[in-house]
Amino acid sequence: MKPEFIPIRNYISQFICITDSEWAIHEEKLTKRFFKKGEFLLKPGEVCGHVSFINSGSFRSFSVLEHEERTYFFAFENEYVTDYESFLSRQPSPNSIQAMEDAEVLQLSYEDMQYCYEKIPVWQKFGRLIAEYIYMGVSKRAYNLQTQTPEQLYLKILNDSPKLVERVPQHYIASYLGIKPESLSRIRGRLAATRN
Amino acid sequence: MKPEFIPIRNYISQFICITDSEWAIHEEKLTKRFFKKGEFLLKPGEVCGHVSFINSGSFRSFSVLEHEERTYFFAFENEYVTDYESFLSRQPSPNSIQAMEDAEVLQLSYEDMQYCYEKIPVWQKFGRLIAEYIYMGVSKRAYNLQTQTPEQLYLKILNDSPKLVERVPQHYIASYLGIKPESLSRIRGRLAATRN
Repeated sequence: MKPEFIPIRNYISQFICITDSEWAIHEEKLTKRFFKKGEFLLKPGEVCGHVSFINSGSFRSFSVLEHEERTYFFAFENEYVTDYESFLSRQPSPNSIQAMEDAEVLQLSYEDMQYCYEKIPVWQKFGRLIAEYIYMGVSKRAYNLQTQTPEQLYLKILNDSPKLVERVPQHYIASYLGIKPESLSRIRGRLAATRN
Repeated sequence: MKPEFIPIRNYISQFICITDSEWAIHEEKLTKRFFKKGEFLLKPGEVCGHVSFINSGSFRSFSVLEHEERTYFFAFENEYVTDYESFLSRQPSPNSIQAMEDAEVLQLSYEDMQYCYEKIPVWQKFGRLIAEYIYMGVSKRAYNLQTQTPEQLYLKILNDSPKLVERVPQHYIASYLGIKPESLSRIRGRLAATRN
C-alpha cells in the first residue's frame, strides 16, 4: 500500500474490520488533491460532491451573514472534511470550506460512496458508525452553544483542542465562538490575569 | 400484524426495504410502554437504554442549568424519541425526557438494537440512514442557533412545525428558543401587530 493511504486505512479501521480485497475496492475510488492555503474546497451555492480525508493541512467551514463571518467547524489532518448536510441531501450549501493551510486530501465522490455501499457490505456499518460519530460532534456543539458562555466555550477549546488555538487565527476562533475578535481578546486578557 | 406495529413498520420502510422475516426478528424485540403526562422516559444521570417509537403522545428533552430550563427537542407520534448521544455512547445523560401528553411507545433496547444489527443485514443500512437523518436535524438546529435571532427561530417554527405551537406550552417553546417566556410574549405581540 502506498504510504499516502496508510492514515485513511488506519482511520477507517478504528470503525470496522476491512479486508484487503474490500479495501482495494475503496482505494481505487480515491483521488488525491492538493489545496493551496486560501483555496476553496466548497463555495456557497455548490453541492458538496465529496468527502475528503485530510492527509495534511487544515480547513475551515464558514459563511458570511450580514457582513459577518460565522465559523462552523475546523478540520485537521487524519480526519474527514465535508459539508455533510449538503453531501447527504444533494442540496447546495450556503457555506464555504476553505484551506487554512496548504493541504493534501484523498477524495471520495458521492457516487463512489454509493458504489462502496453496494460493493462492500461492511461499508454500511462504516457509514452508520461515522454518521453516529459526526452526529455526536454536532450534537455536543449545539448543546454547548445553547448552554455555555463564550468564555466557557473558549476554556473548553483550550482544554480539549489545544492545536486549534495554536494553528487557527484568533479572528476565526472568535467567529467560531460567535463573538467579535475584541471580545475574544478581552476573554484572553481576563484568563491571563486570573492565571497570574 | 397487530395494528400497533403498522406505524413503526411504515416509518422504517421509508428508509429500507425489510422483508417479513426480517421484520419478525425486529418486532419480537419491541416492548410496548405507556407514559402518563409528566412521567419521565429519562432522568438526569441515567444512561438512555432505549429508542422509543411514539405511537401516540409527545415528549420533551430538557435540562435545568442555573435554575433555568433549556429545551433541546420535542418529539411527537410517528417518530422516535431517545437521548441518542447517551444511547450511542452508553454514558449518563445530563438531560431529562418527559412526556408532555399521555403516550404509548414501542421500545427497543440498546442490546436488542445490536442484536438487530447482527441478525438483519439491512439493519446496518437503516442505522446509517437514521443516523444521517438525525444528524441533519441537529445540524440544522446548531446552524439556526448560531445564525438566527429568537424571532426568526420562532417564525421558522410557526412555518415548519405548526403542531408544535398548537400542542406545546408557550414556556417550553420559549426555553427551546433560549429566551424567557416574557420575551416570547413580546415577539408574539410584535408579530400579531405586523399581521394586522
